[in-house]
Amino acid sequence: MQQYQHIRQAAYEANMQLPALGLVIFTFGNVSAVDRQLGVFAIKPSGVPYAELSPDKMVIVDFDGKTVDGRLRPSSDTLTHAVLYKHWEHIGGIVHTHSTYATAWAQSQRDIPIYGTTHADHNTVDIPCASPMSDAMIAGDYEYQTGFQIMDTLRERGLTYEEIEMILVGNHAPFTWGKTAAKAVYNSAVLESVAQMAYLTESINSNAPRLKDALIKKHFERKHGPNSYYGQ
Amino acid sequence: MQQYQHIRQAAYEANMQLPALGLVIFTFGNVSAVDRQLGVFAIKPSGVPYAELSPDKMVIVDFDGKTVDGRLRPSSDTLTHAVLYKHWEHIGGIVHTHSTYATAWAQSQRDIPIYGTTHADHNTVDIPCASPMSDAMIAGDYEYQTGFQIMDTLRERGLTYEEIEMILVGNHAPFTWGKTAAKAVYNSAVLESVAQMAYLTESINSNAPRLKDALIKKHFERKHGPNSYYGQ
Amino acid sequence: MQQYQHIRQAAYEANMQLPALGLVIFTFGNVSAVDRQLGVFAIKPSGVPYAELSPDKMVIVDFDGKTVDGRLRPSSDTLTHAVLYKHWEHIGGIVHTHSTYATAWAQSQRDIPIYGTTHADHNTVDIPCASPMSDAMIAGDYEYQTGFQIMDTLRERGLTYEEIEMILVGNHAPFTWGKTAAKAVYNSAVLESVAQMAYLTESINSNAPRLKDALIKKHFERKHGPNSYYGQ
Amino acid sequence: MQQYQHIRQAAYEANMQLPALGLVIFTFGNVSAVDRQLGVFAIKPSGVPYAELSPDKMVIVDFDGKTVDGRLRPSSDTLTHAVLYKHWEHIGGIVHTHSTYATAWAQSQRDIPIYGTTHADHNTVDIPCASPMSDAMIAGDYEYQTGFQIMDTLRERGLTYEEIEMILVGNHAPFTWGKTAAKAVYNSAVLESVAQMAYLTESINSNAPRLKDALIKKHFERKHGPNSYYGQ
Repeated sequence: MQQYQHIRQAAYEANMQLPALGLVIFTFGNVSAVDRQLGVFAIKPSGVPYAELSPDKMVIVDFDGKTVDGRLRPSSDTLTHAVLYKHWEHIGGIVHTHSTYATAWAQSQRDIPIYGTTHADHNTVDIPCASPMSDAMIAGDYEYQTGFQIMDTLRERGLTYEEIEMILVGNHAPFTWGKTAAKAVYNSAVLESVAQMAYLTESINSNAPRLKDALIKKHFERKHGPNSYYGQ
Repeated sequence: MQQYQHIRQAAYEANMQLPALGLVIFTFGNVSAVDRQLGVFAIKPSGVPYAELSPDKMVIVDFDGKTVDGRLRPSSDTLTHAVLYKHWEHIGGIVHTHSTYATAWAQSQRDIPIYGTTHADHNTVDIPCASPMSDAMIAGDYEYQTGFQIMDTLRERGLTYEEIEMILVGNHAPFTWGKTAAKAVYNSAVLESVAQMAYLTESINSNAPRLKDALIKKHFERKHGPNSYYGQ
Repeated sequence: MQQYQHIRQAAYEANMQLPALGLVIFTFGNVSAVDRQLGVFAIKPSGVPYAELSPDKMVIVDFDGKTVDGRLRPSSDTLTHAVLYKHWEHIGGIVHTHSTYATAWAQSQRDIPIYGTTHADHNTVDIPCASPMSDAMIAGDYEYQTGFQIMDTLRERGLTYEEIEMILVGNHAPFTWGKTAAKAVYNSAVLESVAQMAYLTESINSNAPRLKDALIKKHFERKHGPNSYYGQ
Repeated sequence: MQQYQHIRQAAYEANMQLPALGLVIFTFGNVSAVDRQLGVFAIKPSGVPYAELSPDKMVIVDFDGKTVDGRLRPSSDTLTHAVLYKHWEHIGGIVHTHSTYATAWAQSQRDIPIYGTTHADHNTVDIPCASPMSDAMIAGDYEYQTGFQIMDTLRERGLTYEEIEMILVGNHAPFTWGKTAAKAVYNSAVLESVAQMAYLTESINSNAPRLKDALIKKHFERKHGPNSYYGQ
């Protein structure tokens, strides 16, 4: 339907960035793009290789995870996207990948420590790793519960989804989000890069100190503060 | 001969995926595709670079390893393929590579522990590493015995070839299989990715716990169980 | 303006080398090229992706960091470039990246030890890592102070900017320079390669010795000494 | 001159394979190809980027290192090539690179242990690492002495240049050779792959055992023994 064309296009273009940026192989990731007024989002169909995607294959789903338009079955992670869109009213796109280094940190069940300004340019805190879910949550509506696990983890850390746009789900893999689907993809690539650098940093110096507060503040604010002077 | 054209084509296309997916250099790998009705398989010729392959260069071999059609000598690993096709009647393709991370685990003589959902999406158990063969097996019909070493290892672990479609041969390198040659190649790339992530996971957290049972079950079943909801 | 065309072109071409050499993703780096007679340099605009750059988008800035020509805002690191051009009168270009391995060493707050001739072909000493700046320097004019931090570190080590053309800024990332912008980019790629090799060397042998003095001298002098015999 | 055209072409093509195989950046490597009847070899000119090479730019040098034909200065490593051609009468090509993993092992001053069949397919022994040269050798005719250091190391290990076609020069980088320049390049890529796998193997299992003798013998002989059955 014509009214969904813009989010289908946005979701398609963002999905195609995942293999281009080296974040996925085969079908190992998905991106969605939301339309807040229509209350729906466009998401990658399940198990379809990127090379076979086109905007019209994107599936239109509402915030309860019900398919509204599209011939294909949506991503198996659709309910996680739906829950986050429902509760986080200012995000425009969500990305899930199994990118190598971020997934290795998730499997390690460790937060990614803030070791440098590459990290601080995007986040003022360690990137959280959510604990593996309880057996009851897993046995229940798994993807739906994954969304709550993400929200609960931010809440426990005293963080909002606007302060940090990326998280690791323990034993699983990363999720990122942003004001647009394109920004959420950008965040996935940043996370992968920061994850690789943090791994190498600990390998080079097992006692590497976390970044000092003054530098965290400076780097984040020059990009995101009220007096930011990065970008055009 | 015309009757072998479909498996020659399938084997050719699958072999060409190995360098495209970064799983081989030079001539370091081979794929075969079987025709169960004719009782033969098509396999890469030995020592021929991928860039020089074409469907008609694939060699047709029976399940005793005897060349049935083709001008070139088949892969030196042909007898391993033959043994597995003979005993595992539901597989359609086999792949052997020396891909970097999977081979490093094989050289380490360790099973790859199940650390996350990327692994569980494809296997419910650690990926087995067969012990190096006895000197008698090596001195005998080496490639033939490699097939039995693979089958024996699965039997010892209480696994069937339908439950797990990949194995490491200790000190050597991985073998994978599947219902088609294309699926066997897919499994080789998945194994390489899982092998890299497991290596990084242990580097980041030397006490990383194995994935909990509830998550193993959930992820495998959403892709492969009776109520699977992954894919189209 | 026509008079800046040559440095705009040089800065443009050098900036485009950063993604081509795998040293940056997105907008994670910047190059500048100076005209000593005009007392200005051309630098990448802030936050503009490399694919959208063109020579006319380069910003012309004087040695106090004031924009002299150009419609866009210059790189947020411009003041660091300005300070270095002002004090180091024989350099023609400066590069800043967050390349993976060099940044990992910077985050580790360690000098890169001279472990081999790849290092000695370009430098006779360990590659220095500047200490993180004091909170006062950070709170002040941060990028301006970064330039002084770099100069102070060389001074403390008894090095001149002509003896070594690369440095790590602790917790941050590398800066390199050279007689031209192209040479500064070359130095960035050399640094990344040397940083990766040094990391691997320590992983393979945690007691790897530094290169002996005779080899340091020999390799540096065959490339850079009065009787050099490398190149045309 | 027309008579050198075939080795110029062979050396050119082999040099161009180095960047294609990811073994060099910039000008970090050189290949030569010999004509035994004419008693000369063609080698890369010094410091010229690969993209600017052409067959006619290859320099023709005799076994004492004297330039016989060509307008450019030959590689700074030319005397090492000359010495090896003079003493090893059955080799047709030589390669020197600073490829990442092989160079890291050279910097670590460790032989590469034989951990698997990828290694055994090409060599029956650990890949030797020559000790760093004495100060006297370095101060003397350095590149000439590098050739003797390589030959002495093989002699000390009881190896001939026909049994093993690759070596690490301690603190420096690898040299490989073979019956042709193309085979020597092949050996450089094999060495880099084996070096990476050995590094990963030790990271995954710090007690990984060396390959058992029966497998070393089997894998080498199926490719290189009197009853070899690999290749066409």
